[in-house]
Amino acid sequence: MKSVDIPTIAVKRLSFYARNLALLDQKGVEVISSTSLAEICGVNPAQIRKDLGYFGRFGIRGVGYYVKELVYEIRKILGLEKEWRLALMGVGNLGSALLGHAQFLNQGFTFVAAFERDPKRIGMKIGHITVAPVRVMKPLVMEKGVEIGVIAVGPRWAQQAADKFIEAGVRGILNFAPVQLQYPSDLHVENVDFTRKLDMLCYRLTLDG
Amino acid sequence: MKSVDIPTIAVKRLSFYARNLALLDQKGVEVISSTSLAEICGVNPAQIRKDLGYFGRFGIRGVGYYVKELVYEIRKILGLEKEWRLALMGVGNLGSALLGHAQFLNQGFTFVAAFERDPKRIGMKIGHITVAPVRVMKPLVMEKGVEIGVIAVGPRWAQQAADKFIEAGVRGILNFAPVQLQYPSDLHVENVDFTRKLDMLCYRLTLDG
Repeated sequence: MKSVDIPTIAVKRLSFYARNLALLDQKGVEVISSTSLAEICGVNPAQIRKDLGYFGRFGIRGVGYYVKELVYEIRKILGLEKEWRLALMGVGNLGSALLGHAQFLNQGFTFVAAFERDPKRIGMKIGHITVAPVRVMKPLVMEKGVEIGVIAVGPRWAQQAADKFIEAGVRGILNFAPVQLQYPSDLHVENVDFTRKLDMLCYRLTLDG
Repeated sequence: MKSVDIPTIAVKRLSFYARNLALLDQKGVEVISSTSLAEICGVNPAQIRKDLGYFGRFGIRGVGYYVKELVYEIRKILGLEKEWRLALMGVGNLGSALLGHAQFLNQGFTFVAAFERDPKRIGMKIGHITVAPVRVMKPLVMEKGVEIGVIAVGPRWAQQAADKFIEAGVRGILNFAPVQLQYPSDLHVENVDFTRKLDMLCYRLTLDG
């Protein structure tokens, strides 16, 4: 199951299926056909079967998928059955929103620390977290067992934040700053750049005229 | 220039180049070689030349690109030389962060309205915007010339929010809810799902063991 030959896009879709299945579960749906699940997810049924097929056999022919079970199985595949400990760099608007983001807490992601360059923000309490200065990042990351650093600072400071996180020993980074980070090859980085999505939207609207 | 044969990924990269170029411009860099720009953007120089090549001839052989000029040209290509008017649905943590997000304001995106289902939030002032009830969406969207609706509500309410925006006459939607929206084919939708990025990161970290 720990093959690395599985296409990234299939894993991304799995994550999306799990989220839609979790919503169905909340609504009390117990079983769903692959056709219905495909429709909800905006893909075709063969795609779902193929994506799941990389990881084993799921569902029952002529019946469909047991919703709760499939959520559980996909979360196991994605490594989400454990709790992931996150630290945040930057508690501006975006960072504060992330700290308070209900979705994180629902899904096994927990912020256990937050850091700031700005002295005015150090010592602030956001939820149960007290904002700490960057110089204590390394001991705090170790003490709290932080695995993922989340960068929510402006583009000018993002690389510095990444360097600090790397030095402190995180294994992965979720980067919200619209810059390409430099990092060692054994680290994993995912970029979330929603301004780029907005640019794309404007480009399409402009083409339409 | 208004060809639709240009690959989406090239347009996305253009948007990313423009952002990095704008940072260089802020730092006072006037000219940059395609090699240096490529390094900053984490791509190869041929890629940059190819992506720009879809839209015309830029840069000077043996010199490189004039930073300010190239930012301007790319922004024109993307349709970002005009001001885009946005309306927000949902002023929870994420929505509030978006309203206050400096990046939007820097780049020709302006929120001109915000809507809520929750009566407790209606009438709140966030920045210069007063949160309005959903029932006035249609007249407000028309009056303020809103072109893009931004959905920052939970997954359960996202489709409803989209339907309202579509009914009100927006041309594009930026969706932060982790669901697949249903929409007419003449509308443009971009999805930002950062929890999916986080899932991906955890999957990679789990593979590493």
